[in-house]
Amino acid sequence: MINKLIENIKKTGAPIVVGLDPMLGYVPEHIQKKAFAEYGETLDGAAEAIWQFNKGIVDATWDLIPAVKPQSAMYEQFGIPGLAAFKKTVDYCKEKGLVVIGDVKRGDIGSTSAAYAAGHLGRVQVGSKSFVPFGEDFATVNPYLGSDGVKPFIEVCKEEKKGLFILVKTSNPSSGEFQDREISGRPLYELVGEKVAEWGADHMGEEYSYIGAVVGATYPEMGKALRKIMPKTYILVPGYGAQGGKGKDLVHFFNEDGLGAIVNSSRGIIAAYKQEAYAKFGAENFGDAARAAVEAMAADIREALGAK
Amino acid sequence: MINKLIENIKKTGAPIVVGLDPMLGYVPEHIQKKAFAEYGETLDGAAEAIWQFNKGIVDATWDLIPAVKPQSAMYEQFGIPGLAAFKKTVDYCKEKGLVVIGDVKRGDIGSTSAAYAAGHLGRVQVGSKSFVPFGEDFATVNPYLGSDGVKPFIEVCKEEKKGLFILVKTSNPSSGEFQDREISGRPLYELVGEKVAEWGADHMGEEYSYIGAVVGATYPEMGKALRKIMPKTYILVPGYGAQGGKGKDLVHFFNEDGLGAIVNSSRGIIAAYKQEAYAKFGAENFGDAARAAVEAMAADIREALGAK
Repeated sequence: MINKLIENIKKTGAPIVVGLDPMLGYVPEHIQKKAFAEYGETLDGAAEAIWQFNKGIVDATWDLIPAVKPQSAMYEQFGIPGLAAFKKTVDYCKEKGLVVIGDVKRGDIGSTSAAYAAGHLGRVQVGSKSFVPFGEDFATVNPYLGSDGVKPFIEVCKEEKKGLFILVKTSNPSSGEFQDREISGRPLYELVGEKVAEWGADHMGEEYSYIGAVVGATYPEMGKALRKIMPKTYILVPGYGAQGGKGKDLVHFFNEDGLGAIVNSSRGIIAAYKQEAYAKFGAENFGDAARAAVEAMAADIREALGAK
Repeated sequence: MINKLIENIKKTGAPIVVGLDPMLGYVPEHIQKKAFAEYGETLDGAAEAIWQFNKGIVDATWDLIPAVKPQSAMYEQFGIPGLAAFKKTVDYCKEKGLVVIGDVKRGDIGSTSAAYAAGHLGRVQVGSKSFVPFGEDFATVNPYLGSDGVKPFIEVCKEEKKGLFILVKTSNPSSGEFQDREISGRPLYELVGEKVAEWGADHMGEEYSYIGAVVGATYPEMGKALRKIMPKTYILVPGYGAQGGKGKDLVHFFNEDGLGAIVNSSRGIIAAYKQEAYAKFGAENFGDAARAAVEAMAADIREALGAK
């Protein structure tokens, strides 16, 4: 799947992933109204609204982008109907040829990690039949539990040709509380980065490993150090746009081949119509606003990489 | 909710939580057959089988135990029907007066953590109405992202009178890979433990904080140190039984008041009928086997605490 991700990035010329994190507050009035008219002000109504919103975003942007990243929390908060909307979104994006990164940040041990991996990346056996429960292409994984937690995910990736992005240095202000603590003179996130590179070395696609890392755009200097520690690791970079990361901050996350990183933006794209810069589109045309925001983000990154 | 948990523990005299982690391989043949006859060998069939299995375990043990801990991975692996079985299990256990600890090990940042917290512990607003999506009483949380990740959960706990168990030192063999790394001469898990105590100090129930910790039974010496660092923190202790932890290892997780810890066993109880010691019950009477295993576990802990 890492090969397909890279192929999609080359085809679109845009190392961008659109975060499908549909807070109800981002969904335009007219979509909410229609969904509530059909299903009432219920979890089913909310799920229909976020699904229609996602569909609108995907229909307007799919040809410009290599991948999407639905954030499971935004669906779990609407219970079972919300998770059905998650699954529908995953299926629809895959039909469109997009790579789907399930931002689930799961992490447990042994058979429990194996169950998460089966649920999100693999298949599950029921009697004589097997099923694909959610079927994302990549999943994000939390490393706090160590190898026991990560290896069951890697096994499933190997069998199913899927991939992971493991949290190394997250984009939030307090990420340093534990991740930056120094161990024999080096921060914890570097040790985690080394482990990711080690896990990844045995699990290579053509050019890059299918065991990737998450490193926040908000910490460009740390990104630079981690890029060196993990040369064959694809880096998923959150924190661009709304969280404060800019194109020029991203340069050091990429390798000389112009590859090696894919940058996420969620709110900055899906709720673009709410920003002053895209207000002219209006809520009715939220998809067109998202498309314009993708184009601007792609140009920003291209310019930054050109200037490297 | 920490007050109710302690009340339940005092009432039953058993600081035990039964891990409802229904792998299909644990579910007796006769339950699987019946579920597949009704729903086919499908995700719905698997979900029905694990739900009926859970119901059998709960019906046979609820009066002996204060709490249950369903592990979300075991339900997510059966997709949407699996999560519906999770919800059904949560609701049923709450009806029985049990405290429900959702072992979800979620962890993200800001609005995303808030969405997980709403989904699992709180409620979500849809138009003019509010809904309880999954409605557990406690959730387990991963601390790798720092305060930004944990505080949105704490906010929801405060509003809804719920609680957390934050991963400090996990029970698995490789948990030391990152958790034991020394920072200025002290292991990371102690720093995490200090943070948990700090978060907990402002969020007290009557005797203990509703911000708890997870510390594995497999590391009793570390449990002893952490007990001192977090005197008012309830400790959820996994790793008893199948993972190797024994009653005498548990002593130091408790305070002098005989409280302060609750010990989880999953497979050792729910699949007791598969063990030699309980084989006499037979698969048909898996509930009775689970009940006998709970009684033996409670006696083991009582004896160990008595000998303290």
